Amino acid sequence: MSVKRTLHHFPLDPASRLVRLALGEKRLAFEAAVCRYWEQPEDLVRLNPSGLVPVLVEELEGGPLVLCETRAIVDHLEEAEPEPPLLGRDVAERAEARRLVQWFDRKFDFEVNSLLLYEKLEKRLTKSGAPDLANLREGREALKGHLCYLEGLLGERDWLAGRRLSLADLQAAAHLSVIDYFGDVPWGDFANLRVWYMKLKSRPCFRPLLADRWPGLAPAGHYDDLDF
Amino acid sequence: MSVKRTLHHFPLDPASRLVRLALGEKRLAFEAAVCRYWEQPEDLVRLNPSGLVPVLVEELEGGPLVLCETRAIVDHLEEAEPEPPLLGRDVAERAEARRLVQWFDRKFDFEVNSLLLYEKLEKRLTKSGAPDLANLREGREALKGHLCYLEGLLGERDWLAGRRLSLADLQAAAHLSVIDYFGDVPWGDFANLRVWYMKLKSRPCFRPLLADRWPGLAPAGHYDDLDF
Repeated sequence: MSVKRTLHHFPLDPASRLVRLALGEKRLAFEAAVCRYWEQPEDLVRLNPSGLVPVLVEELEGGPLVLCETRAIVDHLEEAEPEPPLLGRDVAERAEARRLVQWFDRKFDFEVNSLLLYEKLEKRLTKSGAPDLANLREGREALKGHLCYLEGLLGERDWLAGRRLSLADLQAAAHLSVIDYFGDVPWGDFANLRVWYMKLKSRPCFRPLLADRWPGLAPAGHYDDLDF
Repeated sequence: MSVKRTLHHFPLDPASRLVRLALGEKRLAFEAAVCRYWEQPEDLVRLNPSGLVPVLVEELEGGPLVLCETRAIVDHLEEAEPEPPLLGRDVAERAEARRLVQWFDRKFDFEVNSLLLYEKLEKRLTKSGAPDLANLREGREALKGHLCYLEGLLGERDWLAGRRLSLADLQAAAHLSVIDYFGDVPWGDFANLRVWYMKLKSRPCFRPLLADRWPGLAPAGHYDDLDF
């Protein structure tokens, strides 16, 4: 009894990428509807009052189930399709995975994305002028701090939240892969992180992300290279 | 077999308040340790690398379980102490509660707290000068938009996510109660929301929040009044 799923997403949105990776790891098929969310299309706002992607619609027997944004989507997938589990098998692993998921949702998003992605991506999409160099510099500095922290974690662990791949890895990879599209991750300075990203990049769930291209925004040369 | 719990929190932090309300609704006792997080105290940073509150520590048989920030804490409580459930009983209610929880974590926090609470609270705590009037105005405008949206939801439903009280109500009340401490919620313009807040304010879980006072920051006159 396979469920028909449609994901409304934007290819270079970290939150959308998290959901694509989670669906991929759970081997759940879905139709992808690319959504220019910054234009506030009517069908998106009707589905999600915040006007944001991702939105996953499942066609269930009783009618469509509309799941808005990452928390509702990934927690629902974890409950409805528990294998393989993406949140760890014991309380400590689950707590650690959730801590890191929230780290990216709030801290990384605020300190890095609101500067670096805003300047490099959103301003391009919304045609609001040239990137502000001071913001780019500040965003790259903040990014370095986050990379140092992740590098340290991966010195002690195989995966970010412990011994097994978890939602924390998918979340970190979703975010870093967008920044890597723009060539802004200094992989050479972070050996553990680079190995971790190579492992993730080689997984089947990652392939669709590496094929993403957006008109007018060419990715960095190494973006889809598995041995970068 | 009751678990010994310690919550590291700051009384006027919306995220900390969400956890206090969730613990209260589930009738779980805990020791409260007030934390001046903006001073980055060493014991907090040791518990939570992001340096943020809330952090809940549970003394389990195998050793302490450290739960950092709201997602790890409330999802763990929901799994470990399922009654009463705070996430709804069917998939649609759960999806709606999670959507609204994330709405406040990201949208409300970004559009309202980063202006209004930053100017009124954080600048005071960190002694970084007088509030910027343009930011206050912009924050209050954004707040109005959110209140209109919630008012509309409560025109169709008893509680924010449906027929039963859920984590969405606790999250909204956690945020609005801090703004109400500063007297910035125009309740008179939002009849449904006011009734909803009166119901919440009367619950036992809310009493400790209404008793909160921070030195040098007096609450609005109606702050702890059940018939405001």
